[in-house]
Amino acid sequence: MRILHDLAGAGDCRFSPHCWRAKMALMHKGLEFETSPVPFTGILKILDGSHKTVPVLEDDNMVVSDSFQIALHLEEAYPDRPTLFGGPGGVAAARFVEQWANTMVNAAIVKLIAADIHGRLTPEDQAYFRESRERRFGASLEALAQGREAKVENIRTALTPARRTLEMQPFLGGEGPLFTDYILFGTLQWVRVTSDLEIVETGDTIARWFEACLDLYDGLGRSMEPAGQAA
Amino acid sequence: MRILHDLAGAGDCRFSPHCWRAKMALMHKGLEFETSPVPFTGILKILDGSHKTVPVLEDDNMVVSDSFQIALHLEEAYPDRPTLFGGPGGVAAARFVEQWANTMVNAAIVKLIAADIHGRLTPEDQAYFRESRERRFGASLEALAQGREAKVENIRTALTPARRTLEMQPFLGGEGPLFTDYILFGTLQWVRVTSDLEIVETGDTIARWFEACLDLYDGLGRSMEPAGQAA
Repeated sequence: MRILHDLAGAGDCRFSPHCWRAKMALMHKGLEFETSPVPFTGILKILDGSHKTVPVLEDDNMVVSDSFQIALHLEEAYPDRPTLFGGPGGVAAARFVEQWANTMVNAAIVKLIAADIHGRLTPEDQAYFRESRERRFGASLEALAQGREAKVENIRTALTPARRTLEMQPFLGGEGPLFTDYILFGTLQWVRVTSDLEIVETGDTIARWFEACLDLYDGLGRSMEPAGQAA
Repeated sequence: MRILHDLAGAGDCRFSPHCWRAKMALMHKGLEFETSPVPFTGILKILDGSHKTVPVLEDDNMVVSDSFQIALHLEEAYPDRPTLFGGPGGVAAARFVEQWANTMVNAAIVKLIAADIHGRLTPEDQAYFRESRERRFGASLEALAQGREAKVENIRTALTPARRTLEMQPFLGGEGPLFTDYILFGTLQWVRVTSDLEIVETGDTIARWFEACLDLYDGLGRSMEPAGQAA
């Protein structure tokens, strides 16, 4: 059986942007899989203990970590299933989209929602998360969130390349979704299930696209309750 | 004969980032072409006068404008030549790279080098350029350039996704250059031939990649003298 080790908070909240990228990639390929929930403090207990991050995919006798590596593995191992990249040029450019999302978007968002993420974790994870993130960012989670409504405008600006692209084509992958869509989907899903912060305003082209992504694969993304309603 | 209408300044300086994208795409396809130099104030005199921007490519009986459309045309018209996109996923993601370069990089750079660009133009173009750009940006070209050494740091940050990608693979297109590379090449070449502003520091991975791009196609890019030396 295919198993995806998937970050989980309290109440089995699945919020990791990187894990969502991998789950959507598995669905895109039409592959059956089970998720194995793991808290932050359980990552080092996965399999042989060599993994420092999730997702980790067990596929037959292979173990693959890192969402991009998982997508590459799926593309290579299941070439007859729908493509995740649309050719070698798509693989190369997906790296760019990944690096853009990680450095220009996710890195800015995490500071604004770190306190919200903390609120979704198990008590054991909360202690780990607070200590490690406050050290990394040099401020308390609560201080990071202060005045975040003003800072969210910078994130909307950072999203400009995606917005402009989605004004020209329905998905980042073109007429239909590819892994590039799942990269950014992971980001907005992460915010959706942990926080009531409105990163993308209603009416934004990105909001329209995100709703379409939430509908994919029988609404897998939508099946995870949004933080705004769960609170 | 294939003719590319190519923006030209005084002394036949060819600096347009969009025209460089198109020229590199033509070279990539191994196609012979001549360039027809045109000043800003001559664009409306090209062919039937319907074109408001360059590049404009005349290829057989077809006329194509906009560098991305030109690349798409070349990919479709010359499928047996080396691919510019590496498949449909590459086309879709190249749109993202284009929008990123246009909105997050070029839009910031132009303010810092507008006075330098002005210095490279013919007298007639200078009057047009100063008036139109000062109106667009709401400041004099000289005011825009003030303190630009501090502002260039924002551009280096905006280039992070390209830097990270080029730390993982030799070109944005992967092992070799694709149109995505020519998109960003156009940007740095534009700066190189108009300004002595150092957008990318020596030692930056992007500088290494840019030198490799300048060497492509018998050094076509390098054949245009840099502003730092020409001044």
